[in-house]
Amino acid sequence: MQILLTISYDGTNYAGWQRQENAVAVQEKIEDALTSLLYTAHPFERKATVKACSRTDAGVHALGQRASFFADDLKIPLDKLPIVINGLLPQDISVIKAEEVSDDFNPQFDAKQKTYIYNYYNSPFPNPLLSRYSAFVPEKLNITAMQKAAKTFVGKHDFAAFCATGGSAKTTVREIFSCFVVQKGEAIEMCITGSGFLYNMVRIIAGTVLYSGLGKISPDDIGSIIYLRDRRRAGKTMPPQGLVLAQVKY
Amino acid sequence: MQILLTISYDGTNYAGWQRQENAVAVQEKIEDALTSLLYTAHPFERKATVKACSRTDAGVHALGQRASFFADDLKIPLDKLPIVINGLLPQDISVIKAEEVSDDFNPQFDAKQKTYIYNYYNSPFPNPLLSRYSAFVPEKLNITAMQKAAKTFVGKHDFAAFCATGGSAKTTVREIFSCFVVQKGEAIEMCITGSGFLYNMVRIIAGTVLYSGLGKISPDDIGSIIYLRDRRRAGKTMPPQGLVLAQVKY
Repeated sequence: MQILLTISYDGTNYAGWQRQENAVAVQEKIEDALTSLLYTAHPFERKATVKACSRTDAGVHALGQRASFFADDLKIPLDKLPIVINGLLPQDISVIKAEEVSDDFNPQFDAKQKTYIYNYYNSPFPNPLLSRYSAFVPEKLNITAMQKAAKTFVGKHDFAAFCATGGSAKTTVREIFSCFVVQKGEAIEMCITGSGFLYNMVRIIAGTVLYSGLGKISPDDIGSIIYLRDRRRAGKTMPPQGLVLAQVKY
Repeated sequence: MQILLTISYDGTNYAGWQRQENAVAVQEKIEDALTSLLYTAHPFERKATVKACSRTDAGVHALGQRASFFADDLKIPLDKLPIVINGLLPQDISVIKAEEVSDDFNPQFDAKQKTYIYNYYNSPFPNPLLSRYSAFVPEKLNITAMQKAAKTFVGKHDFAAFCATGGSAKTTVREIFSCFVVQKGEAIEMCITGSGFLYNMVRIIAGTVLYSGLGKISPDDIGSIIYLRDRRRAGKTMPPQGLVLAQVKY
């Protein structure tokens, strides 16, 4: 049977989702917990492996990452499974749901839409209670311009200008279903939902929306930046701590 | 001249506000920064000292702590002072305001009212993005009972039942101006404003409000718990990470 987990984590202390040499990744912590749970009494040295929906970068957070694993046999009821796994995980990673999916389900390719939130903190001085989870912006921002800029990303576009080199995607065309900016006092959120995202795409869009708020890019020019497919015309890549993988829908 | 600072900090990595041996306190970080700023070029080994409004406990956070220091002479304009001090502070402490006060001003005794917020996170599973700043409560809560319980603390009372031993207060009478509970989805906040607070008083009131939400204490009994002055009848002392010193008024 295949089990799909919904996972939240504070990415601050991790080198991202994906397991790697010489650095601690979220995947490793989850796999180690599942190995203890499933194979401690196993006669051979068997190790659990999980496949995730999104490979979040170092320092990026998640409220609704999804990852699945196969189990021959599971004696723990599914509704109790998160509590048991959480007992084997550090405090900055938490499984919030476990559900059974069909064996041919693929957590990456079967995702229909993903929602990311990018958090800015806009105030003359930093707020230590938000600095782990937002990008600090001391300059005055034009929120209306940011809202206008966010809207222009909606639709099916070639996002070559909004993508870092190093990605493995075959095409740079993606569809954005919604993109908007909300202000809650000094906290400003950009919320973006799409069919999928290229490498660093959300952080570059967040940087372009920010540049619109700073007056460095006109929201009216974003259409032509998309059209020209030139990374240098888009905004900067925002730092990882402001980014949260909020939700995945299948 | 005396300068009053408004300071925010994430208390997670500190043994509280007050400077002490064998542990790092917020006061020490602020004093070290001010010593560098004021006395680096001083002919004698002079050290800056600050006097705070509240000695927050280990792990407790602040959005609006106040602390003052004396300076013979200050060449930096007051509105630039926070940025300069922040350059000498770690990321989890931030000065957000500096203002001149009279020499006889006392940041502790001149405080007219203080506001604390206690944050609970009420969900079946923990949220790693909120666990540094809230107490995790997986049980179902009766919010209406919590709101009713909070109200009963308002007024001038002898709070001997809501105070840990070890405090240095001459009287256990305090006045609470307002105390209420608001629910924002899974985040629940208790906001309390008073003339001053006894040792652990906010955390014991937060525990009593929580016990009302769990059905362990009836809100109708809180009046008699106050009257009986018996610590054992009140709720537990909540953990420090949910507590924030939000505001001080002079």
